[in-house]
This record gives sequence, C-alpha cells and structure tokens, in this order.
Amino acid sequence: MSTPKSRKPSRGKPQKALGHFAQFSKAEFEQRIERARKVMTREKIDGLLVSSEVHLEYLSGFRSVFPWNSPSRPWYFFLPRVGDAVAVIPEFGATGWVRSSWCKSLATWPSPRPQDEGITLLAGLIKGVKRRYGRFGVELGPESRIGMPVGDLLRLRDAIRPIEMADCVGVLRELRLIKSPAEVARIRFLCQAACDAFDALPGKIGAGDTERDAMRAFQFEVMARGVDKAPFIMPRSGVDGVDALVAGPVADKRLRKGEILYMDQGSKHEGYFCDFNRNFTVGKATDKVRRAMALLYDSTTAGIKAARPGATAEDLFHAQAKVLTDAGIVLGDIGRFGHGLGKNLTEPPSNMPGDRTRLVPGMVMTIEPSLMMGGDRILVREENLVITEDGHRMLTRREPREVAELPA
Amino acid sequence: MSTPKSRKPSRGKPQKALGHFAQFSKAEFEQRIERARKVMTREKIDGLLVSSEVHLEYLSGFRSVFPWNSPSRPWYFFLPRVGDAVAVIPEFGATGWVRSSWCKSLATWPSPRPQDEGITLLAGLIKGVKRRYGRFGVELGPESRIGMPVGDLLRLRDAIRPIEMADCVGVLRELRLIKSPAEVARIRFLCQAACDAFDALPGKIGAGDTERDAMRAFQFEVMARGVDKAPFIMPRSGVDGVDALVAGPVADKRLRKGEILYMDQGSKHEGYFCDFNRNFTVGKATDKVRRAMALLYDSTTAGIKAARPGATAEDLFHAQAKVLTDAGIVLGDIGRFGHGLGKNLTEPPSNMPGDRTRLVPGMVMTIEPSLMMGGDRILVREENLVITEDGHRMLTRREPREVAELPA
Repeated sequence: MSTPKSRKPSRGKPQKALGHFAQFSKAEFEQRIERARKVMTREKIDGLLVSSEVHLEYLSGFRSVFPWNSPSRPWYFFLPRVGDAVAVIPEFGATGWVRSSWCKSLATWPSPRPQDEGITLLAGLIKGVKRRYGRFGVELGPESRIGMPVGDLLRLRDAIRPIEMADCVGVLRELRLIKSPAEVARIRFLCQAACDAFDALPGKIGAGDTERDAMRAFQFEVMARGVDKAPFIMPRSGVDGVDALVAGPVADKRLRKGEILYMDQGSKHEGYFCDFNRNFTVGKATDKVRRAMALLYDSTTAGIKAARPGATAEDLFHAQAKVLTDAGIVLGDIGRFGHGLGKNLTEPPSNMPGDRTRLVPGMVMTIEPSLMMGGDRILVREENLVITEDGHRMLTRREPREVAELPA
Repeated sequence: MSTPKSRKPSRGKPQKALGHFAQFSKAEFEQRIERARKVMTREKIDGLLVSSEVHLEYLSGFRSVFPWNSPSRPWYFFLPRVGDAVAVIPEFGATGWVRSSWCKSLATWPSPRPQDEGITLLAGLIKGVKRRYGRFGVELGPESRIGMPVGDLLRLRDAIRPIEMADCVGVLRELRLIKSPAEVARIRFLCQAACDAFDALPGKIGAGDTERDAMRAFQFEVMARGVDKAPFIMPRSGVDGVDALVAGPVADKRLRKGEILYMDQGSKHEGYFCDFNRNFTVGKATDKVRRAMALLYDSTTAGIKAARPGATAEDLFHAQAKVLTDAGIVLGDIGRFGHGLGKNLTEPPSNMPGDRTRLVPGMVMTIEPSLMMGGDRILVREENLVITEDGHRMLTRREPREVAELPA
C-alpha cells in the first residue's frame, strides 16, 4: 500500500462499488436446472451435454477465461434429466472448477491426451443415465458454437449408440430467453457503465483523432468503470452517415469537422453483454444528419413504446419501421431493427418481419432502427431495455435527440 | 484536438510507435495459400471450408471482432485446391470483408435467415469444385472449434454427398506450426509489451491490494502499451506457492506480506497471443520460495538451451525435468512443460513425454517448468521463444533469478 493512488487506473470508486457482482445464488442455479429438466421432459431428452462458454457458464456457474482462449482441452457439463449433474473436465482444472461452480461432482482425465480428450468418460456417463426416451441432447442448433472439436462429437455419437444424439439448443434458448432479476442487474450495470463511458468521450477525442483512438478511449473509459472488457467496438466516421461496416477492421481514419462518428459496442462483464451504439458529430451536425437523427429518435421511441408483454419481435420492427415509412423512407432490404441479447452480444429473437416470438417479462432486447443515407452509408440508433410485467424498463439512458458534439 | 493529452490514456507514444501493424502483405497470404494447396494435394482433399476465427483470419486476412462475439450469423472461407477462393458471408458484411481480406470474390446471403444460413450456397460451391479425390476438408480435428452450428455442418455433409467430408485441421496445423517473420514480429511485440507491463506493476500494486486489483492493473498497463486486449489473466497469491488454479475465477483475496503472487497472462494483439507468467513476492521472498524459484530458473535455462532445430518437444520437457529431478524432485503427474502458441494461447506441440514433434525454424514455444510445493500449491516460470536456423531467439525478456518485489 505504498504507491500513489493516482497511478492506479484500475482502482476508481465505480469499480469497487458496482463492478463486481457476487456469484449467482444457489437458488438461481436450482431454478435454471429445474426449468431445464422440465423442458427436457417436454422435448423428450434424457439429458444434455454442453461444451460452449455460454451454456457451461449458464448451467454450472463455472467462471474462467482460460478454456475459451485455450482450445487444447475441452470442458464439459453433463446434466441428466434424472440424477446428478457432473463436470467432465481436465484434471488440472478441478481446483478452479470447485471454486466457482455449484456442481461438486467431477469426472476428470489427464489432459492433454490427444487420443481421448474425455470422450470415453462422456460415453460412459451418457450410457449410465436413467433412460426414458433414448435421446441425449448436445449443442447442434441455430446460433450455437460448441467448445469441442466436431470430430470428438461424432466419435461420441458413435460410442453411445443406440442412444440417439438430439439437439439441446432449443431447450437452452427457451431458458436463456427470459433473464432473471440477477441477470438483468448485470446487463443494466453494463449499460450504465457504457453510457457513462460514452458521455466521457467528448472530453477525450475530437477532430484529428483516429477511429482507433476513439475505440481505445472508449475501452479505457468503460474498463475504468469496472467493466471486465469491451470485446466488440466498431467506430466509423463519415459525412452524412458512415459506411455500413459493423464487421470490419478498425481503421486509422481521422475524424474531420462536419463528420458523424458512429460507435457501436458490446461491452462484457461477468459473462453478460450490453449492445448499443452512440453517435457524435465532429463540431455541429449537418442539417441532413440532424433530420435523420431526429427521425431515428422518433423511430426508437416508437419501438420502445411497443415493447411490452404480448407484443411480438415483429411488432417491434413494424413500430420502428412505420415512423420511417410515414416520413417517406423506402426501407428496402434493411435487415432487422434489433434483437435479444444477454450472454451473447446477439441472441434470438430478431425484430424483423416473420419473427413472431412473443415478448414476455425478463426478455432483454435492443431497439435499433437504421436509415440508409445514400451510397453504402448508414445511420443507426440503439437502446437496450428489459420487458417487464407492465411494459418495459430502459437499461440504457437514451441518446438525446440532438447527439453529442466532439470538439472540432 | 482540444483536450489535454494527459487525460487520454489510449494515446501514449508506445501505442503509436508499436501497437499497430500493417495488414500482412499479399505475398504472405499467397505463401499461405500455396502451402495449403500443397498439403491439400498430399492429403488428397479437393478443398477446404473454414468457419473458425483463427482459420478464417489465417487464410483470408479478414479482421473483425464482430463475428466472434455475435453467433447469430456464421462466416465462411472456401478454398478449393484448384480455382478461386470465395468468402461466403452474410450480405451486410460485404463492405467490411473487402476492406480487410485479400479475397475479393464473395458469395453472400441475407442473414439472419434461420432456415438456411448459407448452407445451400456452400453446398453449391463445394459441388462445383474441380474434383480429383472426392473429399472436402472441414474443421473436425484436435484442438479445433468451428464457427458455425454443428447441425448446419451435418446438413452440409448430407447436401454434398457423395463427396466425403474430411478433416482439414491437420493441414492447418501444419501450416500454422511454422510462423513467418511477420507473425513472429507480432508475437514479439506482445511479449515485450507484456514484459513492460509486468515491470510496471511494483509501482501500482502491493500488500493489501486484491488479486483482482492486480489483474486490472496489468490489463491497463498492457493496453496502455498499444496491445488490443488481455483476454486471459490469472493472478493467484499464497505463502510458498499458489493454488494450481490456472482455470478458475478471479478472486478478491488480498495480497499479504510474505506471499508470492503468480500472474499468468495471454495478451492478444491483431490476432496473435503471447503466453507467459511473472512472479512477485510481497516484500522479501521466503527461503523456500527463493530456492524453488532458483531451481525453476535453472530448469527454464535448460529448456531454453535445448530449443533448437532438430530437437523434439519431448526433449524440451526432459531438459527442464532433468534439472528438477537432479535436485531430488519427484515429478509425478506434472503434465506438460510448455507448448506452441500463436493465433491460439495454446497450440501444438506439447513439451511432454511422447510428443516427438521435431522443432523447426519459425516455431514459437513456451518454456514452462513447474514445481509442486506441497498440498495443491505450485510455482511456475514461463518464457516465450522462437526457433531459428541456429538455435532460438528469446521473445520475452527473462524473468530474473530473484523475482521482483511488491511493496509490503
């Protein structure tokens, strides 16, 4: 305790006060497991085996960044419909596992062991499960990513025959769609921290700085507020709109007076994401940008107003779209106007025509209208909210109608 | 350009000078593709399809953090043995793709489209490839992680019959094992930045701070040196050794006088990792720790000396182990003493008995002996190096024999 406080960037007050949540309660996990087993019964599967970061964390409570950066060893969580859950993990991980997961029943193997990274162990466990349906669930379905080599999954499928390998992603999707109050609290913390970080940017960046500078300034601001990391940040700048480039490299393009800076971000904390952008004009906004941002503000308002139990994801799209089409905009092939979020940056459902997922309390959603500005340029506003019994609660502080200015 | 420089944590000199590498050259990718095709011919596969972050980046040069945080849409890179490579990606990603990849040939679909996220497109491409062997490679093999749902991969397999789905991970492993000078430069930058960040810690943390404080202090220090992020950090502290807990939650345990702080980390920049730890004593080291760290220093030295073309990964293990067993240590089931690294935190080979992978110039390795200290406690030292024509080149600055002290 000998060094000056001012040299310790990681020890500001907000971090201590807000940034570290206690592990989810035992009751929270009991509820998840109980719900999972109910859905497993309805879907006629005798158990499930997950290896992905999101599903392993979601069901077991295990927390570690190691497995998701080091693919040499897979980690498994095994949940039969009847009987005890088991962590099937590399031997050297046992100490870390029991520190964070509620599940204290472990089956381990000495890893790396390239010829058999846990597959014989898993097959034995699956074959030993009390069976009613003859089907065992693994992660096969939409928007899933397994945390093991596919070859091992195919070997496991052969080893458990005649037990059938079924999909369990539908089960987990149903569970994860509705967030508990403790999950919402994490996402809300992230939204507030990222709002604060955005609010601080006009004091940190301006004309002459690069898009990369803007990205790094945001990273430091949001992490200084106690957030673990900012895995996704996309800054883009341009005159009267920015290139539609959400997935692309960060650039060293400099911000120029009169441009708009769009910054999308997904900051992450203790296994949860927020996902929203903010916009800044470098000096005064052009008339074109001011009109477009006002229209997008009204579109966002309409989407937010439509967010209540009983409405569908499609309804959120149409509410936002109507404001734009009423103003004479031809939408074209615009994609979606928002989506679910939580343990992933993007989750089902999609606010787009055809997605009739019904909103229920506990669903966390983005409201995200966009406007094509000519050429490939685009403008976007995005907010995060949670559906409540009587409508919704904002998780972000709304971006003002007239967006913030950076020094020109 | 109106705000005081001192408030801009992201804009220090090191970042500007070192932190941003130009994209790999066209020649670098031509070489990768040419090598890939040679190995494809030898392995008798007509082409390959990759969806993982590491392999998509490695072959195509595409750079974006978005796809790896948002699993709603898969991204594919398709490389036939004969004919043109094609990016098979969501329509909205086209602008971002062409900004970063050398491959300008795109096939896109409007995504999200849950009923067919690119699978029909891919099947058509694979069936259209000039075939000699009737086998097409996808990522199935050891230590791989696909960037698509398994269900889609199985659908694709059915759709391309009678073309056989083969493994392409062996091909990519062979390519990635040997790093180009440009790849080594990235890893070396990371190693140096992380060494500098570690060197700064005694001015930032000390007795009374928590392990979490230590983690965050390192994150800020390494990012202030221009590094993109520090996805893996594991701080552990204890008397005469730390819990063997590389994969576990970060804790709020406070550092106490007389303890040792072990900090493992894998910082990441532009798609590459470093992977090494550093140790600190809180005040003076105990005699037990001083002796153990000296022994580990000599073990590391022996591992480093053994690192030269022609030696095997197993030889690196035995060189390190001999120093320990000569001192009367019984090794037991100690696992490996280092491994490859690069686009993953951990890559083949493993420095362990049985891994006879022969070292060749361009391989980047960790040298990582460990010592059990009683109970479940452990001590570790780790360095990174690259194999060269005449031996090796250190990428880290070695941790001194007597490790650094933190203020007690």
